[in-house]
Amino acid sequence: MQTPPIPENSKKTIININGEICKPEDAKISVFDRGFLFGDSVYEVAKTYQGIPFLLQEHLDRLWKSASRLEMLLTVSQNDVSAEVNKALAELGVEEAYFRIILTRGEGPISLDPGEGVKNNLIIIAQEHLPFPSSWYENGVHVVITNVVRVSKESVDPNVKSGNYLNNVMAFMQAKREKAFDSIMLNHKGHVTQGTTSNVWIVKDNTIKTPPLQAGILEGITRKTLLQLAKSDDSLKIEQVNFTAEELINADECFLTSTMKEIVPVTQIDNSPIGTGTVGPLTVKLHSLYSDFVKRTVEGL
Amino acid sequence: MQTPPIPENSKKTIININGEICKPEDAKISVFDRGFLFGDSVYEVAKTYQGIPFLLQEHLDRLWKSASRLEMLLTVSQNDVSAEVNKALAELGVEEAYFRIILTRGEGPISLDPGEGVKNNLIIIAQEHLPFPSSWYENGVHVVITNVVRVSKESVDPNVKSGNYLNNVMAFMQAKREKAFDSIMLNHKGHVTQGTTSNVWIVKDNTIKTPPLQAGILEGITRKTLLQLAKSDDSLKIEQVNFTAEELINADECFLTSTMKEIVPVTQIDNSPIGTGTVGPLTVKLHSLYSDFVKRTVEGL
Repeated sequence: MQTPPIPENSKKTIININGEICKPEDAKISVFDRGFLFGDSVYEVAKTYQGIPFLLQEHLDRLWKSASRLEMLLTVSQNDVSAEVNKALAELGVEEAYFRIILTRGEGPISLDPGEGVKNNLIIIAQEHLPFPSSWYENGVHVVITNVVRVSKESVDPNVKSGNYLNNVMAFMQAKREKAFDSIMLNHKGHVTQGTTSNVWIVKDNTIKTPPLQAGILEGITRKTLLQLAKSDDSLKIEQVNFTAEELINADECFLTSTMKEIVPVTQIDNSPIGTGTVGPLTVKLHSLYSDFVKRTVEGL
Repeated sequence: MQTPPIPENSKKTIININGEICKPEDAKISVFDRGFLFGDSVYEVAKTYQGIPFLLQEHLDRLWKSASRLEMLLTVSQNDVSAEVNKALAELGVEEAYFRIILTRGEGPISLDPGEGVKNNLIIIAQEHLPFPSSWYENGVHVVITNVVRVSKESVDPNVKSGNYLNNVMAFMQAKREKAFDSIMLNHKGHVTQGTTSNVWIVKDNTIKTPPLQAGILEGITRKTLLQLAKSDDSLKIEQVNFTAEELINADECFLTSTMKEIVPVTQIDNSPIGTGTVGPLTVKLHSLYSDFVKRTVEGL
């Protein structure tokens, strides 16, 4: 087939398709797969620290929640997925890996109706993870507020991590055009929701704020972890509360959280510096708390 | 690979992937294709009458519009696509065919950013088309009004025929649960938009009405054709105008239009019969006008 070569092949990559390990150039899926035809799939992205898949159970639980919200019948178990993740990672054989778990509603006739007796396709892409630029963490990043409105709960549940990602792709393309790190998406009410692949947080008058699930966000696992960590530190005041773009721009600090990138300080939004325009103290403190948690978790295993 | 067999193989099917003809079981695409990862693709569905692709140019124009709205760079031309469609249809060798043209943003690193230098993947699925049940046209069908709200123009342009189809999949699954033919989707304002793969029309007091593009609909080619045909018949009064679910239920007639299904009368919505509960006279007249147009077009080629 005249398929073009996969770029970015400097990173070691292994794919596991329904239990079979293959190289990127051989990793193919049927064009009748509903993930390809309709974006009818759910997925997770996670990473390893010291070779250990971090919070894998939390990611599997979220994958199952996504599937359930799409009424996707599952013909694989969490144990199956976990075993296939470990198989791919063993084959990859690196300490720091990115891995993506994709579960589709399977193959069938070309119909919106998934029908009966569908068998999921399970794809795991495991890739060597190279460190992100240290400047992100030392200087903070520049984000823009996009006019691409976060898809509403009434249309496609934004708390499902699905193969329908054009909403985020279009928002991210706007960031790229404006030479920014990412876009912040608002909902139809004008409230801040999230970045294209991250949750967003602000600090104002020493209170740490992040939008509630009801704003129409994906419930990030790093977000959830930070909320839990903050509970056990009496000096931290954290709220899940709606805020506007204006409040975002006028915040003292701002940061993004994601599984891969952990905690990324935001020091500029559109043309405005955030706070002092440098990385804020609470952002640093939270990242330190998170890193300690990662260390404890990985060493405790 | 342990991929399950493709069901519904009673219908003869041919796939063309980037110019290479293959059988359904061999028709595979890279898992790094953005169509698979993000639903980052555009598509068209069309049919042949007497072996001739019907309104192919209109479908290609719409495909190009969809790509443009997603800012998708195209590395193939309309002539390329047209030639590959004809190659697939020649290989299929049937008089009445369904064909689906899928154009993806290509393969690349796993990033929301499509990046530069991407080469599209072009997939054509050509399949023998068997006639739909005559009861649809003789007795009309039952549709439901779904609570899945049509994705808004601010989130993902609903006038793009893209690989992000979960909004429609979820709406269609509700119809299936309620043993209905299809679901009618409303927008966030409560106006009627469309069926999951069709445009919707009502007749009230001899005026034929269909929602305007601004309601957040895909601009159907059958819809466009009917609007043009009606212009040359002074006895027909047609309006593109918003209407509510209540107006839909209280209509004298209702019907759906789509490339594959042409004009399907709706005789029941939720638990209410529409008009007399039988196929209405203007629905019949419009289908007859459309059939004459098909005949003229095919014979004129």
